[in-house]
Parts: sequence; structure tokens; C-alpha cells
Amino acid sequence: MPRAITAFSNPIVKQVRGLRDKKNRRREGLFMAEGLRILTEAREAGFLPRILFYGTGTRHPLLDSLLAQTEADGGEAIETSADILHKLSGKENPQVVLGVYQAFSTDLGRIDRNEAGLWIVAQSLRDPGNLGTILRTGDAVGAGGLILVDDCVDPFSVEAVRASMGALFTQKIASAPWESFLEWLRSGEGELIGTSLRAAHDYQEPRYRRPAFILLGNEAQGLPKAYEEACDTLVKIPMLGKADSLNAAVACAVMAYEMLNQWRHS
Amino acid sequence: MPRAITAFSNPIVKQVRGLRDKKNRRREGLFMAEGLRILTEAREAGFLPRILFYGTGTRHPLLDSLLAQTEADGGEAIETSADILHKLSGKENPQVVLGVYQAFSTDLGRIDRNEAGLWIVAQSLRDPGNLGTILRTGDAVGAGGLILVDDCVDPFSVEAVRASMGALFTQKIASAPWESFLEWLRSGEGELIGTSLRAAHDYQEPRYRRPAFILLGNEAQGLPKAYEEACDTLVKIPMLGKADSLNAAVACAVMAYEMLNQWRHS
Repeated sequence: MPRAITAFSNPIVKQVRGLRDKKNRRREGLFMAEGLRILTEAREAGFLPRILFYGTGTRHPLLDSLLAQTEADGGEAIETSADILHKLSGKENPQVVLGVYQAFSTDLGRIDRNEAGLWIVAQSLRDPGNLGTILRTGDAVGAGGLILVDDCVDPFSVEAVRASMGALFTQKIASAPWESFLEWLRSGEGELIGTSLRAAHDYQEPRYRRPAFILLGNEAQGLPKAYEEACDTLVKIPMLGKADSLNAAVACAVMAYEMLNQWRHS
Repeated sequence: MPRAITAFSNPIVKQVRGLRDKKNRRREGLFMAEGLRILTEAREAGFLPRILFYGTGTRHPLLDSLLAQTEADGGEAIETSADILHKLSGKENPQVVLGVYQAFSTDLGRIDRNEAGLWIVAQSLRDPGNLGTILRTGDAVGAGGLILVDDCVDPFSVEAVRASMGALFTQKIASAPWESFLEWLRSGEGELIGTSLRAAHDYQEPRYRRPAFILLGNEAQGLPKAYEEACDTLVKIPMLGKADSLNAAVACAVMAYEMLNQWRHS
């Protein structure tokens, strides 16, 4: 049976609110996701929350089944106020449901590259919105997942989960230092494709083969030269304006849709 | 001659800090942009700041010329501390220069559609990061600018300017209610192209003609049905995953690069 929490001082409220900080997420191995739609996608992907908060008076068939399954799975359902949901999520207009999930392993060894023709690799990605948007794009193009190389923003941050629109639960996520990633990559099939201003080839020139790994550089610096040199193919996306780079998530989408278009028309 | 400000209580500090709020931007007709690179792009596009803040001890040839030109243009140069720059921008690691600019008119009548083959139109866009990223993409694909339809987020917000990476100064920006936009659109040449899940045609099917107007819907709701019906062409971007939509800036980029690719190969 769901229980009700109305006090801001309740220890669970404090604990969950704390999950907005990376160090707390790490220590507790938990993260949060918001919104009935995202929580339903999570469930369809096999993830049920450990704690499910919902606003008093919220009625929806999807919420009912989510509540029942969460409790059957040993999770806890908590009815609470809009004010507490606001406090938990930090959003001005919080969603009426919020789930606390067990963080999953981001061990590179968990990735089976043969599961998909496309994988996205991001190096030192800093912006959680970009990370989430890249996951969302990965889902759309049928990528297998996102490999985070070097020191990236936490994929379990509230902003990343929010921007992923549920793709955090459907895309595989791994994290590894560059050398480990490269060793893993070269232990099997796969082409590493980077984008660079220094590239000689337009991004529409190569015929991309699967599995393809798109390598995205840090938002401010782009890819280090040594990383570019490790790529099998370096391409450039045409840019006609004053700026010399695209947003990282945009560059990812332009590359990924080119590959998807080549493959679906061949 | 630059003057120095070290006190948080200085009225200019208060005034500029206030520009993070839309109502203050509107009342004063001012907005802020950060970073030597963006301010230099602004200057190249013909925009000099009314007030130029720079961190004590900052030395750069680009800053020197920016200072000289700002003062020659009647603007004010102010040397200040990193703490005050932080207070002004709200950023943890503020840029060492920050400019305050006169907001420009977003009257639709200022747009000359013949200046470019592509224009981006966004309806009820809510996220300033998306708005800025769309401007940045517009710059890259050689679009003329962005037309904001109905109630969109303020293009002069700090987050939008930041995400635009300077494209706020190189892209034209207009704002109009839907009916006024439609009337203006139909008073001249131009095809209105919307993306929709209900569309029958893949986005790579049509041969796009210039000037083309890409119509993007609100992040949460997409385009209203009546707006879709007003489009000359409705297309869908293929999506293979669980989600049924792309991030608005990503959808914009996928559409815009398809058009750019058609035109540059023809």
C-alpha cells in the first residue's frame, strides 16, 4: 500500500532530494527520473523504480499499473504533495510522478557491439543536456548506445535523464578511459569515425559500414589530435556561416542520420 | 578610459545583473553576451556593446581592439573582478569579458526572404538552449534567420545567447503571431515545410525549393493540427526507437542538412 509523506523534513525526501548531487548518486547507487511517460518507457525496458512518488490526487491507468508493479517488485510507493515533488525535482512545474532507480553498471564489458550497427562515443562531454539529447537521438536512429570516454558529465544526472526523454533506459551506456575504449574497440570489428575541421572528406563521401562508432569531441575543444589520428575515417560536416562548429548533439544527429540514410537506402 | 568597479553594490552591477530577467531586458532594451569570441563575432556583424566588462588583468589583442572600438562608439569599458563577472553572468566559471548590447527589433517586416534560401520558423519554442542551438545551426547551414511564432522563449535570454555561440548576431530574428506570419509568408515566394508523425512522406523524398521555411513545433506538443494543415509539405524523419520525437534543435538540424545537401549536390 502506498504511504503518504507530507513533511519536508522526512528523511526519504532529504535522501531523494540529495540525488541531485553526483556524490550522493554515487554513494547510494541511485538516480531519479521524472514523468509518467518516461517511467512507463523505463518499465517497458525492464526498469522499475525502488521508490515511486506521485502527486496526491493523480489518477491515470498507467500510474495504477506502475504502482502495482513497483510494489510487486518490492519497491515503495509514496503519495506526496506538489510542493514536495517540486523540492525533489528542482523543477518549477514538476511532473506528477518521480521514480528513484538503481543506477546500472557502465562497464564497457557489458556492451555487445553486434547488437547494433551504430554506436555513439563521446569524449569529455560536459553538458548534461547534450548527453541526454545524444541518447535520445541514439534511440531514434537505432543506435545501440553511448560510450562515454574520459571525464564526461554523469549520465544519471537529473538534467541528462530529463533530456534523454527515456532513452537512458533504452540505450546502453558505458564509460571508459580512452586507452581502454580503444583497446576494446580494436578487439573486434568496427570503424571509428570522427568529425574534424581538419578532415579532407565531406561527411557524405564515405560509404559507412557497420558497426560504426561516431566519435564526438568535447564541446569547447573538440577532439584531441591524438584521438583524431586514431580514427579510421575523419570527416567534416559543411558549415557555411561564421561559426566553426556545431553543437555536439547536433553534430551527432547530422552524422547519425547520414549513416541511417545510407543504410536504409542500400 | 576604462573605469574600475569593485563594489557589488554599484548601480551598474545591479542593473546588468538584472538583465538576467526578461522584464528588465524588455524595460531597458538591453541584453548581455559573454566571451571574447562571441563579442568579437558580434563586432564583425556590426554590433558593439554599450557596456563592456572585462576581468582585471585580462590581456588579449582582441580585447584591446574591442575596448578601443567600444569607447570610440560611445560605449563604456569597465574593468572588474572575477567575482563581479560571476555575479553578472550567473556562471560558475564566468568568461573574462561580458558585453551589454542594445536589443534589436524583431519585427517581421525587417526580414528580406530573398537574402537566404532557408529560414527556420519555430512555434512556441520553450527552451532557451534549443533556441540558441537552432540559431547556431542556422548559421552553419547558411539560413537567413529564425522566425519565432506565437509565445516563444526570449531570444535575448542569457542561456539563448550563450547557446547560439554568437549566431544571435549573425542570424536575423523575428517574432510574430501565427496569423501575421502566415500572411507575411503568403505575400511572397516560399514553401512551408513541417515535420509531423502524421506525414506520409519521408523527409528525403521531396525536392526542396528555395526559399524554404522549416516549421518546428513546440517541444512538448509538436505542431498544432491547423498549423500542419497550413504547410505546403509535411514530412517525417524516420525514427527507429521507442521515442516518437526528436529534440527540436536536432530535428531542425536533420531537416536543414537534408536541404543543404540537396542544394549543394544539385
